[in-house]
Amino acid sequence: MIITLTTDFGLADPYVSAVKGFILGLNPDAVIVDVTHEVRPQAIEQAAFVLTGAWPYFPPGCVHVAVVDPGVGTARRAIALETAAGFFIGPDNGVLSAAIPDAAREGVPDQGGAARLPDGARAFELSDARFHRSPVSATFHARDVFAPVAAHLSLGVPVEKLGRRLEEVTLLPPFRASEGGPGVLFARVVHIDRFGNAVTTARAEQLASREIVAELRGRRVPGLVGAYAEASSLAVLTGSTGFLEIALGGGSAAAVLGAGIGDRVVIRQGR
Amino acid sequence: MIITLTTDFGLADPYVSAVKGFILGLNPDAVIVDVTHEVRPQAIEQAAFVLTGAWPYFPPGCVHVAVVDPGVGTARRAIALETAAGFFIGPDNGVLSAAIPDAAREGVPDQGGAARLPDGARAFELSDARFHRSPVSATFHARDVFAPVAAHLSLGVPVEKLGRRLEEVTLLPPFRASEGGPGVLFARVVHIDRFGNAVTTARAEQLASREIVAELRGRRVPGLVGAYAEASSLAVLTGSTGFLEIALGGGSAAAVLGAGIGDRVVIRQGR
Amino acid sequence: MIITLTTDFGLADPYVSAVKGFILGLNPDAVIVDVTHEVRPQAIEQAAFVLTGAWPYFPPGCVHVAVVDPGVGTARRAIALETAAGFFIGPDNGVLSAAIPDAAREGVPDQGGAARLPDGARAFELSDARFHRSPVSATFHARDVFAPVAAHLSLGVPVEKLGRRLEEVTLLPPFRASEGGPGVLFARVVHIDRFGNAVTTARAEQLASREIVAELRGRRVPGLVGAYAEASSLAVLTGSTGFLEIALGGGSAAAVLGAGIGDRVVIRQGR
Repeated sequence: MIITLTTDFGLADPYVSAVKGFILGLNPDAVIVDVTHEVRPQAIEQAAFVLTGAWPYFPPGCVHVAVVDPGVGTARRAIALETAAGFFIGPDNGVLSAAIPDAAREGVPDQGGAARLPDGARAFELSDARFHRSPVSATFHARDVFAPVAAHLSLGVPVEKLGRRLEEVTLLPPFRASEGGPGVLFARVVHIDRFGNAVTTARAEQLASREIVAELRGRRVPGLVGAYAEASSLAVLTGSTGFLEIALGGGSAAAVLGAGIGDRVVIRQGR
Repeated sequence: MIITLTTDFGLADPYVSAVKGFILGLNPDAVIVDVTHEVRPQAIEQAAFVLTGAWPYFPPGCVHVAVVDPGVGTARRAIALETAAGFFIGPDNGVLSAAIPDAAREGVPDQGGAARLPDGARAFELSDARFHRSPVSATFHARDVFAPVAAHLSLGVPVEKLGRRLEEVTLLPPFRASEGGPGVLFARVVHIDRFGNAVTTARAEQLASREIVAELRGRRVPGLVGAYAEASSLAVLTGSTGFLEIALGGGSAAAVLGAGIGDRVVIRQGR
Repeated sequence: MIITLTTDFGLADPYVSAVKGFILGLNPDAVIVDVTHEVRPQAIEQAAFVLTGAWPYFPPGCVHVAVVDPGVGTARRAIALETAAGFFIGPDNGVLSAAIPDAAREGVPDQGGAARLPDGARAFELSDARFHRSPVSATFHARDVFAPVAAHLSLGVPVEKLGRRLEEVTLLPPFRASEGGPGVLFARVVHIDRFGNAVTTARAEQLASREIVAELRGRRVPGLVGAYAEASSLAVLTGSTGFLEIALGGGSAAAVLGAGIGDRVVIRQGR
């Protein structure tokens, strides 16, 4: 059984290995895969976005643990979601939004909010301490709550046993550009990848045309091109998970543009 | 059988994978878990501290390899420790101190020194070349000595076979604040974690009161608070392994304070 | 079956985990080992060099995937090499050169070029889409082509089935210093490791004497010493994979020298 980990813990501290050690103590056969531990500290939306680019390529039935948890030790709930794709475990702050289809996330405010789960998804509060480490610290629920719960799920414990069922959880709105009038989309930069590609919230499927111009930081960037090698100057292309990216072949578009997460991007089509 | 790795090798070089490849060649069923490879180059004490935060969360019987080894290729010994927790393998320079309880480390000088092992712990010099790679290089004992020894232990080779028994090994003094008079503790910053929490050598169990003030870099920081989210300004809390940390919820305490590893911290209680 | 990964993807993006998830979906028993994901973006030669320091320490029969792929989505071929050591999979741009002995790489230009494979090595173009993900994106062949091919090989699919046989592939010249006259070698810095050791293309076996002086950035550095601890000032030693390194015990030679990848190094022997 595969358990994936997405956190903002970094790799220099003992935190990730404590999580892994505790999982393996409960389930020696667990196969643990790091999605990333380099989410910016406390960047819930970035974690949700990165997980969006990872979990669909895992087989169904995995346990995906995502912990970006500025509220650890407070009254924020810890939850498990069950979907057709598997289980998603983490704090109830929106970080698990990647698990839930867009339709159920429409109308949620930008900073996230309570939303009803769609058919086919169930949520449970991690309230039964029998499935936690004892004692539970106030500062490290990844080790003390989420890791043992993930291990128990991987061992076949029914998700209903973990705690009481929830009808609503905290979700983020869909990662998607908003309509800005005829042929115009308003998007944001949601991630800068290692190559300096500025990944936006706009999806290729939102475009009516491949003839577009993206505006970012006062620069006009044409598109779409088909491959990074065709971006000999700044260009827009469709990244590997379907989101539009501003790229520069052999260089860093983000560095050239001075772009950062949160920057607004206006996309004009058909010109 | 789980084998953990704690080193200062970083992740950009082939070193870590050479270690893993050699282990897996000897024991294809080994489960290798990285604690961290981002110890600061040659920072023996930091490695020992990070391992202190990791190994207790692994099941008993694991093989923990820790290699921060400025003396590689010199006369420094290579050792294996056996304790109730499992095996600890590395150079005999103090990096394995995490394996040994405080009582046996009392009175050792700050830079480390020879200490007698307590009951329940045994040490062996890795002197039998049958359990090493051949030839052994002068620069990479992690691959040539520690990896094959770890693999052999994970396969059930008795630790006594690895070489001659040692009565004393090099240990560091306990990670703990010293008494500075009534209600006063003298501590040091021993680690800065990814969130910028300045982790000190002072332990929560050393406090008689939760009403304290820590002084660091000329700033007075109050405590204890119970969770990072309660540290809306600089505050002291008890971290997940029992050491006091100076934290800033949503920010980096170390950056705000200009704090670094080795900084002195004075803790006054009961004010 | 072990599958190793060498890329320039970094660890902050979902890319590496998408590759791993797709492999594990096809072969749940695959043991995936990271060589590194921190090759500098698009640095084909550095990736080939790092892989040179890793694969020889893995058991025979592994599948080694190396993806530094500025031409992804263009007409560049995707290939699999089969050698006595196992399989090597990646784009046909020289990144797999580590798999092929020097003799077959003599005379290839510095930037790489087509070369005939030696006896004992075979190459195949990854042209059979049955062994790829469907659809194949234009930007992420590691996930869509190389990962599924690696998984299929690890499951025992014969390499001949992956596509048509190739007689020539793109290789880089040997990592080796060139002769610069009696007792003189011309080398380059090919890698800077985490400790700041400047690793050169010169091999210990090219030296007739251990009395040498290396010139780099205008500084004369003596050698050979036997261990990092003997490099109390800048010194040359033989690194763990047989290449000469300029090192500084307890410090960073590269920082002191201002050295970078590509710097020329002149080595004079027998002085």
